[in-house]
Amino acid sequence: MTRNELFRQIQLKKSFLCVGLDADIDRIPRHLIHTTDPIFEFNKQIIDATSDLCVAYKPNIAFYEALGARGWESLAKTLEYIPKDCFTIADAKRGDIGNTSRLYAKTFFETMDFDAVTVAPYMGIDSVQPFLEFEGKWVILLALTSNKGSEDFQLTLQEKEQPLYEKVMRTAMTWASPDNLMFVVGATHPEKMKEIRAIAPDHFLLVPGIGAQGGSLEGVLEYGTNKKGGLLINSSRGIIFAGEGKDFAKESRKAALNLQQEMQSIYYSKGIQKDH
Amino acid sequence: MTRNELFRQIQLKKSFLCVGLDADIDRIPRHLIHTTDPIFEFNKQIIDATSDLCVAYKPNIAFYEALGARGWESLAKTLEYIPKDCFTIADAKRGDIGNTSRLYAKTFFETMDFDAVTVAPYMGIDSVQPFLEFEGKWVILLALTSNKGSEDFQLTLQEKEQPLYEKVMRTAMTWASPDNLMFVVGATHPEKMKEIRAIAPDHFLLVPGIGAQGGSLEGVLEYGTNKKGGLLINSSRGIIFAGEGKDFAKESRKAALNLQQEMQSIYYSKGIQKDH
Repeated sequence: MTRNELFRQIQLKKSFLCVGLDADIDRIPRHLIHTTDPIFEFNKQIIDATSDLCVAYKPNIAFYEALGARGWESLAKTLEYIPKDCFTIADAKRGDIGNTSRLYAKTFFETMDFDAVTVAPYMGIDSVQPFLEFEGKWVILLALTSNKGSEDFQLTLQEKEQPLYEKVMRTAMTWASPDNLMFVVGATHPEKMKEIRAIAPDHFLLVPGIGAQGGSLEGVLEYGTNKKGGLLINSSRGIIFAGEGKDFAKESRKAALNLQQEMQSIYYSKGIQKDH
Repeated sequence: MTRNELFRQIQLKKSFLCVGLDADIDRIPRHLIHTTDPIFEFNKQIIDATSDLCVAYKPNIAFYEALGARGWESLAKTLEYIPKDCFTIADAKRGDIGNTSRLYAKTFFETMDFDAVTVAPYMGIDSVQPFLEFEGKWVILLALTSNKGSEDFQLTLQEKEQPLYEKVMRTAMTWASPDNLMFVVGATHPEKMKEIRAIAPDHFLLVPGIGAQGGSLEGVLEYGTNKKGGLLINSSRGIIFAGEGKDFAKESRKAALNLQQEMQSIYYSKGIQKDH
């Protein structure tokens, strides 16, 4: 999916919502456990209940990998099931030497057909480049993550007083354009959102950390949007585990709708639509 | 496997060798392609040919993941097949927020039974901690990697003039002990090996980058050993793709033996054995 196509979806749905499909086998509703493929069955119902409200889905690969071969099958079926008008992100946080990153890229872009993969920057250019070589695909690079540990290294000042995450962003912006590079910026750092938008005015930001992790949607929307929308705001547990019973998907829809409504009001108030 | 048990294997085999099982389906000998499980068949023959010469095996997970569910089965069978006196490393370079890292740890330490996992440090303490919570298991944290891109961020000077990789090492050393934490240090930075050994005198270092990547074994052995051996020196392509024909495993053994012999001579000359 291209940047314009993604923006078009944001316009149509008045939503920046990305639903994190972190389908933890220990937390999905118990009545699903005895179906043939509980993880896929869970995802299928979540997708049916939310796909008109969100513009993206982001399965976190850990939750599938933990189940071994079976998990990979659930993942492949889930990806297949996601409607084509939704952007798909493999939240894998991969990054390795060139020949290995190439394999990871092949896995998520060829064996499977994700639009984007999250990539860790620590190993530098040749760990990221192989993902960028796939036409029409995206790298979403970790910049300032949503977790507490983001303080350990990402905020450390470097030469010229810039924190590491800023150096990562500025360096990566020389490797790729806003048409195939996004950044992960946690909602738990609202005070940084304005600076980050100044560093990368045109890039999409993938924002985890609202809901269970405590970040504020309002702060993100206020400072994070740009004229192309520019945001994918992720909620995982807050949506997918909103309910526990047989009607869990209804509860998920309610949670997604609440977020979408809040997004829609900002969408209009910021006049995003009028700019294009 | 504990630190003392690993050291004991180094003593017995006079070897620091780790064989990287990067079983690229496009590079394994063609006559194996039509077996039921070509990747496992390849690994099995490599393991049979090298297990008396090496102390560790390190499958790079990318090469298995690229094959989807089938790849995970080959990986599980391979791990099962590795003799119990060899240390096993899942080269996965994972790292995510706490609840997700916990899942990755479960995958590699419970669903499978690896001794160690390589972990990327960018996301800080709560991305690493869940791996450290598994009794008897190891984290091998990326410090200074072997690839060109290691220059992009790892060598950047931080506050107090220390490069990022040094800050990563010093910080992580407050999280864990030499009994469950190792560092990845590429053989392609021989000039740094002495400094790194000074920072972490007691930790094992996992050293990739000899062979195909151009690092020198001699430099690594000269400056990297400590009184417990302290090194796992990885060779992947140089060993596993040494031959292409039906006798490929014989060629692999030759390549492994060459490395082990060089290691053995340093082993004696450094008097490692006498210290314990």
